[in-house]
Amino acid sequence: MGYLDLSKQELEKEYSVLSKRFEEIKGMGLSLNMARGKPSKEQLDFSLPMLDTINSKSDFIGEDNMDCRNYGLLNGITECRKLFADILGVDAENVIVGGSSSLNMMFDTISCFMTAPAVEGCKPWYEVKNRKFLCPVPGYDRHFGITQYYGFELIPIPMDDNGPDMDIVEKLVSEDESVKGIWCVPKYSNPAGTTYSDEVVKRFAALKPAAKDFRIMWDNAYCIHEISDTPDVLLNIMDECKKTGNEDLPIMFCSTSKITFPGSGVAALAASENNLKVLREKYNYEIISYDKLNMLRHVRFFKNYDGVLKHMEKHKKILKPKFDIVLDTLDKELEPAGIASWKKPHGGYFVSVDVYDGTAKRTVALCKEAGVVLTGAGATYPLGLDPNDSNIRIAPTFPPNSELEVAMDVFCTCAKLAACEKILNK
Amino acid sequence: MGYLDLSKQELEKEYSVLSKRFEEIKGMGLSLNMARGKPSKEQLDFSLPMLDTINSKSDFIGEDNMDCRNYGLLNGITECRKLFADILGVDAENVIVGGSSSLNMMFDTISCFMTAPAVEGCKPWYEVKNRKFLCPVPGYDRHFGITQYYGFELIPIPMDDNGPDMDIVEKLVSEDESVKGIWCVPKYSNPAGTTYSDEVVKRFAALKPAAKDFRIMWDNAYCIHEISDTPDVLLNIMDECKKTGNEDLPIMFCSTSKITFPGSGVAALAASENNLKVLREKYNYEIISYDKLNMLRHVRFFKNYDGVLKHMEKHKKILKPKFDIVLDTLDKELEPAGIASWKKPHGGYFVSVDVYDGTAKRTVALCKEAGVVLTGAGATYPLGLDPNDSNIRIAPTFPPNSELEVAMDVFCTCAKLAACEKILNK
Repeated sequence: MGYLDLSKQELEKEYSVLSKRFEEIKGMGLSLNMARGKPSKEQLDFSLPMLDTINSKSDFIGEDNMDCRNYGLLNGITECRKLFADILGVDAENVIVGGSSSLNMMFDTISCFMTAPAVEGCKPWYEVKNRKFLCPVPGYDRHFGITQYYGFELIPIPMDDNGPDMDIVEKLVSEDESVKGIWCVPKYSNPAGTTYSDEVVKRFAALKPAAKDFRIMWDNAYCIHEISDTPDVLLNIMDECKKTGNEDLPIMFCSTSKITFPGSGVAALAASENNLKVLREKYNYEIISYDKLNMLRHVRFFKNYDGVLKHMEKHKKILKPKFDIVLDTLDKELEPAGIASWKKPHGGYFVSVDVYDGTAKRTVALCKEAGVVLTGAGATYPLGLDPNDSNIRIAPTFPPNSELEVAMDVFCTCAKLAACEKILNK
Repeated sequence: MGYLDLSKQELEKEYSVLSKRFEEIKGMGLSLNMARGKPSKEQLDFSLPMLDTINSKSDFIGEDNMDCRNYGLLNGITECRKLFADILGVDAENVIVGGSSSLNMMFDTISCFMTAPAVEGCKPWYEVKNRKFLCPVPGYDRHFGITQYYGFELIPIPMDDNGPDMDIVEKLVSEDESVKGIWCVPKYSNPAGTTYSDEVVKRFAALKPAAKDFRIMWDNAYCIHEISDTPDVLLNIMDECKKTGNEDLPIMFCSTSKITFPGSGVAALAASENNLKVLREKYNYEIISYDKLNMLRHVRFFKNYDGVLKHMEKHKKILKPKFDIVLDTLDKELEPAGIASWKKPHGGYFVSVDVYDGTAKRTVALCKEAGVVLTGAGATYPLGLDPNDSNIRIAPTFPPNSELEVAMDVFCTCAKLAACEKILNK
């Protein structure tokens, strides 16, 4: 029977049981972490052979017939641009391969438009005093952070199972010239694991923004990060935008951070010629060339897109059981209490749990007291402000399965304890 | 006898000889390049063993007790921060190790101050409409380019054998609040190879800028890049600034681009706590962490600062003969004509030649016609505007010595031909 159907006495009893259990857990002196989307050690090991593809005996001449150990090729080496073109579903000439971080490329993109007009005749965003950015929620804190750093008003856009609420997006984008962009993780969104429906992608491609320099930050971070045998399929936004003549709307990003090594992977962006022209003007002054040896390392390891997909199968074998532990524990421990809801994603790196309204902060605090670190409550909302104080992002990938089981047990205990407290007005 | 001492008839004869020689050279169908400061293949080979220090069998746990294959450590790994602290002569806690490019870190620094106040209470530089940056000339085109991109008025500051003319620097900096910074390559400056004298460094440290947010961009790119047995010694600006209470003035940069691999090296900056606070606020949103595997690769290869210095001895052995070819050819071919002057640097990557006034562009064009690519004339001045049209930067490091000899022969022929033309008013 759900907590809300229990009598006060029954709930007090449950509270007492949970409190005792909580004290027991505290006594275990745990130190577990489900806070950030880091691959596990086992996953990192899959990419170890990549480190051997470039060594002192290697041939460093790539397809561009240049020594990859020296300066040159601002757009990245041709073979790596091709690989990312396949991953993102675009032409290689629309790809810039950058350093190791797609977040850095997103930051640089916003930074670029802050001081240089994204479209000739438009004001640099720094000069748009009431500039706004749309933030589908729950979403990725580091996305929101970039536009927060640059002084945007962050407007939360509700997400449902199809993606952002496009009625709201269309209204805001078409009516308000100070709305300059939107953050999207279109496949296996962070944290809910939602893949945008065909209709949502088509509606994005058909947007008629009031601002000529409105841009869609299309962070396809989990484009091939499956955990299920029935993967979601995302419509290619660039193809759709070609049909609508809106090719300048999206700027696409991805990286190998969660394919090979986080921080030591390779990142890329893809965009229309118009967007690339503005971005390249900046890159041209910003750097001579990115790390081509690391690009070569990746290309020689994967060989081609098929090689990347085969590699992702290995990750899937590790990740699926981890997600199963999370979802099974939630089903077993939280479902009966009827005080929380969550999605079962087909891929990505997170499980998004909505605990009882007004108890997310308390749940995270209790977990911390019990030795389990979670992503801060509210982190999935702009400025950390979750209006319902209910969303918690669980990152199950890093801990070993044995620890994950314990951590999820702690989480469920804390979520239930916090709900009891709230309902009982403790 | 110098050209200016020749009779018109004698000079016409010389012109005729040079023209014939020029046509011969053109007939050789050369394709040589002395344009950019790239290490030669032989130099790159010195760092090949570094690529073997990180392989599939490596231990990836560094001094911070973290797996360097995963996210984390925004400031870089401790052992790499220590190494750069030794190279730059600062404390490790004042060092941020970034990606592969110090130019990128300089760009990011200017970019940061464009939209965020460098000092609380100051305006972000974007809002300073007549913002100015001091550019010692001849200097590095990519430095000037960054501040050009960000809309600064670039003010050329003459250089002499001691560094920038400090009388002018002091006057401009103390009188004009819109002067926000200066670009410096304090040791073996690009291109003249000048090392700032102790007095110049002390005067930099003692500046009393009108702008509270005036910053010295101290690009110590060639700090250990010797080619002579009597290396120049540069005073440590941070030590001097501690004495004057001006620790917030300098931001120091360097990288291993010309130590290991250009584009695949490691870059770092060092600054005061106040400056780091502002810069870290940006880095915190910009990236999760830089490539720690590449940091580890470098540290395991060099072990310590002494290892770096030993490695630089190898570069010196390759570079000295290259500089000798350039300087010997200049002595032999241009000295007698009396139409050019140059410095003999003790280190760095360039030889700066001042050809006959008004003939730099013509000399570079003639060289190009003869199949020898040089850095564009004027590139060493802001906006590419060399008022005397006389400075040409020669980059001798990349071509094999045999090619360098030919290229220098071509250069001297073209410089003399251009001078003859000019004097004869052809």
